Amino acid sequence: MNIPFTQHVQSLPDTVPFVGPETIERQLGKHFIARIGANESAFGISEQARDAIKLATCERGCSWYADPENHELRTLLADQHQVAMSHVCVDAGIDSLIGLTIRLFIEPGMSVISSLGAYPTVNYHVNGFGGQIHSVPYKDNHEDPVALAKSAHTNNARLVYLANPDNPMGTCLAPEAIQQLLNDLPDNCLLMLDEAYIEFMDKTPSLPIDITDPRLLRFRTFSKAYGMAGMRIGYVLAHQDIISGFNKIRNHFGVNRLAQLAAAASLKDTNFISRIKQEVEIGRRRIYALADSLSLEYVPSATNFVAVNIGNEQQANTLIASLAQKGIFIRKPAIAPQSQYIRVGVGTHEEHELLIKTLPALLGI
Amino acid sequence: MNIPFTQHVQSLPDTVPFVGPETIERQLGKHFIARIGANESAFGISEQARDAIKLATCERGCSWYADPENHELRTLLADQHQVAMSHVCVDAGIDSLIGLTIRLFIEPGMSVISSLGAYPTVNYHVNGFGGQIHSVPYKDNHEDPVALAKSAHTNNARLVYLANPDNPMGTCLAPEAIQQLLNDLPDNCLLMLDEAYIEFMDKTPSLPIDITDPRLLRFRTFSKAYGMAGMRIGYVLAHQDIISGFNKIRNHFGVNRLAQLAAAASLKDTNFISRIKQEVEIGRRRIYALADSLSLEYVPSATNFVAVNIGNEQQANTLIASLAQKGIFIRKPAIAPQSQYIRVGVGTHEEHELLIKTLPALLGI
Repeated sequence: MNIPFTQHVQSLPDTVPFVGPETIERQLGKHFIARIGANESAFGISEQARDAIKLATCERGCSWYADPENHELRTLLADQHQVAMSHVCVDAGIDSLIGLTIRLFIEPGMSVISSLGAYPTVNYHVNGFGGQIHSVPYKDNHEDPVALAKSAHTNNARLVYLANPDNPMGTCLAPEAIQQLLNDLPDNCLLMLDEAYIEFMDKTPSLPIDITDPRLLRFRTFSKAYGMAGMRIGYVLAHQDIISGFNKIRNHFGVNRLAQLAAAASLKDTNFISRIKQEVEIGRRRIYALADSLSLEYVPSATNFVAVNIGNEQQANTLIASLAQKGIFIRKPAIAPQSQYIRVGVGTHEEHELLIKTLPALLGI
Repeated sequence: MNIPFTQHVQSLPDTVPFVGPETIERQLGKHFIARIGANESAFGISEQARDAIKLATCERGCSWYADPENHELRTLLADQHQVAMSHVCVDAGIDSLIGLTIRLFIEPGMSVISSLGAYPTVNYHVNGFGGQIHSVPYKDNHEDPVALAKSAHTNNARLVYLANPDNPMGTCLAPEAIQQLLNDLPDNCLLMLDEAYIEFMDKTPSLPIDITDPRLLRFRTFSKAYGMAGMRIGYVLAHQDIISGFNKIRNHFGVNRLAQLAAAASLKDTNFISRIKQEVEIGRRRIYALADSLSLEYVPSATNFVAVNIGNEQQANTLIASLAQKGIFIRKPAIAPQSQYIRVGVGTHEEHELLIKTLPALLGI
């Protein structure tokens, strides 16, 4: 059928950034028992967030549109980060904010630099808006800021994407390396710094949120440490003139009201994140110990998942499929040389026990 | 600050489609007692939806990303509408779907036809993607399909937007008039048929969902009759090749998981909508009676709000401001000649009682 899509849409392939675990469940005809493949939290949401959702659900909280200015939440975030509210834009998760960022900055044909095998949703949106992705390889399982900056110059890029901590490898860069990357960017090139996993880092990074630097966008989310991936809420911290741009194109009534209330309640629950950090640290050590016991190399992680080396890509792919058959959902990096790893999420005690029970036999150990 | 936005973004004004009631509350320094201005439901969500949210909130339901294929919900919707699942795309509300539609079809400079004073979010997204809005006047408080088709020809339009029932006037068109509009469209022009309020119509409209017609997109929502405006979930019914287009650009993980579960639960609650229809019908009659008692003309409504004629635009504006001072949130049409009306939402009994108590004095009666 000849649908009169725009020329660009007509050129787009049928593609999805990720296959969801539910799709695999439907293919397998059974439910996963352990869901440790999407970097979702195994430790739930704050009690205060839960209470906020319950209260709103009993009253008219589901029936009212959320405050389009996200005023209370932005007030709390501005206070937490010691910035003015004008530097905060809340939206329905980092995926949505990435899409808006590409739309704000990328004219058709313009270049965006990312790492080879980094977050596929960035590529999805860059392609979706007619931009051009250029990828540089990882270096020792870390994203490579020197190569990113170099590629930005070579390709006259408008945006560079860097996740710190990184997904899918779980590594992180020193604040100085990120500052150096910022300094090394070409003129009119901005850094998209995705900090979805930042709460899991051992130390709060010392890179200050420099709100006067109009080349930096810091993306944050309630999906990971705050356990609210299904709620779709995140935010960007940036120069107020950049935030004004987001306000010109975002869906002002696009944030779920329960998510807005739950996010605000989570921020008020000051002990929550330190408890989650502890749980995740315990979980990471459990995965390290499991890898050690199986003589598998792993990458020390600053996130809620650990990349474990299976030896080669084919073995890793086979293992992922076998784990799925056993009811364990795990994802893995897609691109060599990281593709020899699997990405094991920190799960509950029960999920980890199942992994311990299942993994040796599948590895022939 | 010279931020390197795209040329088009640089040309966009600072604008929002609507000011939220919370913004007005902050300006007034007090909370509204009656919130009957945003066409939100006063009658809550289905008990089954509430149970689904509570259950998910207690388990890991907030922490898991929603199924990106919206499989269960699309199965239920396909069954309800007697179409194949490939004709249904679920997304985070009609606002988001309108944005995606503009992005799918509008190259910079292309024309979209709407009615003068119709849903501002359409204009917001058309401008946001560099399209050109052309508006035709209402005719006797109805959107005018003949004028819409004529303007589509004159302006070589790619899209025509029509809400049926209409917002802000609450009127509806006969199915035959919509079919005629479809027939009268220029080549390569599609109809965006916004049916957000369709559940409130007296009779289910007889226009069949013609899924073989690639010129028609029907937008539906859980925001209005289903009472889930704050949950952000809606869908579009269209030719499967159009749906394929949405799948190439939408945020696959963009739907809130509680919304997805609650929407599915609502559809299974087969008595819910007929009960809500009754409540809204009672509410409309109450508003008609109030208008009659004050000798104000009103427009019989097929929605959950009633347009009441205050006599002229200035009086209507003054009244809205005075109502806000008294704690009553009401919105009104912005463009003449509809701007002499106020748009009174069906509220709870208590909200309506407050209106009855407040309105006469403000009108000097």
